[in-house]
Amino acid sequence: MDEFHFISTMLAPLATDKGALGLKDDAAVLAVPADQELVITKDAISAGVHFIGDEPPELIARKLLAVNLSDLAAMGAKPWGYFLALMLPSSSDEKWLAGVAAGLKAAQSDYDISLMGGDTTCTRGPLALSVTALGLVPKGGALLRRGATAGDGIYVSGTLGDAALGLAIAQGKLPSNDFLLSRYRLPQPRVALGKALRGIASACMDISDGLMQDLGHLCAASGVGAEVRYADIPLSDAGSKLATHESVLAGGDDYELLFTVPAPREARLVAAVKNAGTPVARIGTIREGAAVQAFDAQGREIILARKGYSHF
Amino acid sequence: MDEFHFISTMLAPLATDKGALGLKDDAAVLAVPADQELVITKDAISAGVHFIGDEPPELIARKLLAVNLSDLAAMGAKPWGYFLALMLPSSSDEKWLAGVAAGLKAAQSDYDISLMGGDTTCTRGPLALSVTALGLVPKGGALLRRGATAGDGIYVSGTLGDAALGLAIAQGKLPSNDFLLSRYRLPQPRVALGKALRGIASACMDISDGLMQDLGHLCAASGVGAEVRYADIPLSDAGSKLATHESVLAGGDDYELLFTVPAPREARLVAAVKNAGTPVARIGTIREGAAVQAFDAQGREIILARKGYSHF
Repeated sequence: MDEFHFISTMLAPLATDKGALGLKDDAAVLAVPADQELVITKDAISAGVHFIGDEPPELIARKLLAVNLSDLAAMGAKPWGYFLALMLPSSSDEKWLAGVAAGLKAAQSDYDISLMGGDTTCTRGPLALSVTALGLVPKGGALLRRGATAGDGIYVSGTLGDAALGLAIAQGKLPSNDFLLSRYRLPQPRVALGKALRGIASACMDISDGLMQDLGHLCAASGVGAEVRYADIPLSDAGSKLATHESVLAGGDDYELLFTVPAPREARLVAAVKNAGTPVARIGTIREGAAVQAFDAQGREIILARKGYSHF
Repeated sequence: MDEFHFISTMLAPLATDKGALGLKDDAAVLAVPADQELVITKDAISAGVHFIGDEPPELIARKLLAVNLSDLAAMGAKPWGYFLALMLPSSSDEKWLAGVAAGLKAAQSDYDISLMGGDTTCTRGPLALSVTALGLVPKGGALLRRGATAGDGIYVSGTLGDAALGLAIAQGKLPSNDFLLSRYRLPQPRVALGKALRGIASACMDISDGLMQDLGHLCAASGVGAEVRYADIPLSDAGSKLATHESVLAGGDDYELLFTVPAPREARLVAAVKNAGTPVARIGTIREGAAVQAFDAQGREIILARKGYSHF
């Protein structure tokens, strides 16, 4: 299949925003509303590292968009659109490309976003993809990692550790479980919750590399420490049967929101969470200093062999 | 070298725009001035396809930025910043990474841009990189591919075909020549010229895949045909000695601007070009219809075996 034919027949119909110029130009031209700021994030994934490689193309495309929208959610932004770079091995046939386009279309429909541009090219290596996602947030309203202060409650959305167990299942290391597998295969970016947390959370990020490592980044950006109570971390029914300290505290790929809330705003948090429809749970407290620690039900510190992922 | 250490020591110093948040957050938060539109382009390159692989890392980084800035120049935009995704093979050592950072720094200094975010990860395949470049243009002022009408002059900047000859030299197929090699290795995005063409060019794009193929895209977007006079195409001294119809009309990687100008604006073009400091030459005329043709000095049509690059 020819590059230009693929773009005009499968990708151009996804470019619904008029700033994308039908994918017919050198670049997109976008008008950002005067009362909004632009939130931009960029990720890259490649087969054998971020996914196994034999997943259906629909799922690879949907997951890549979900992961990027999770970054936008972590900033409190409303998703707007995305740019896609596809680096295709020579084995990519028309059916496979149609699968990618179908996955993009499904994600666009879920999150009301438009393809805006990108690049389609080939590679001598395994499949690789990169997405640049754009969102909008009212001026000054973005949620940042900095801003947590001693005494703030530490919260997470959803349940933790499911995706790490799902990955182990996908690798054949644990018996199959559809729920856990789906949590690994297709994260649900917490877009509505992120928007609801504007003006409430003092700091926010998403958990992609493991709770304790990511909390460490939030604390470093805010210049504070943290105390997490393991027993208060929300687990799914399926996840709780297989959970270990490592899967819950250091497992990656959950894409839940991790955020802090000052005590005076807790009542507003309850109302906001109810509207957003995503459960949240308080798992600890921001402390002075730099120590980021987790404690078990007996008050003993939990020491992990590794805190989370590093990509090289 | 650890991922987070690489980011904090080598990349964070390049994030000079405050919207980049020191690369410490999930995304960048950018304030677009109310009277400007945002121009965005995204490219991906991988070793063995877009570059040979043994080039110095400084040069790979600089060329990738140059190519993206060329897309911004083609829209008449002023470059603002960029997001970088690095997909690194396990052989990437600290010295190599420092080379990439040095190349980015040099390009930032040349074009007054800032790193704004991105992703650093590993790959099981060859090195791959993706850049998303952002520029600004006054509202409604972007140069598009559509807009050319019959009678408009067709112009190009600089000289054509040099990069295709430079690639042949790099591949050992032609004897060495520093000028031609440098034209392939490090394109010069025509940023000043692109800005100067606002309000003058009726259509514009950059030549990355070969003159006739790219002119075909411009004509398709504008709903017109074109007639090119081969003898009027500007060649460099070194290039003219080795030029073939193929290298000049179908050679890629020149990254010169290709644009059209209605006759009443030709006087303004002369003044604008003088200020921008980049020579331009008229090479033909936009015609009604859909035929995009090149003619030799005897008025015979030049038929090419292939018009330009397709990436798969």
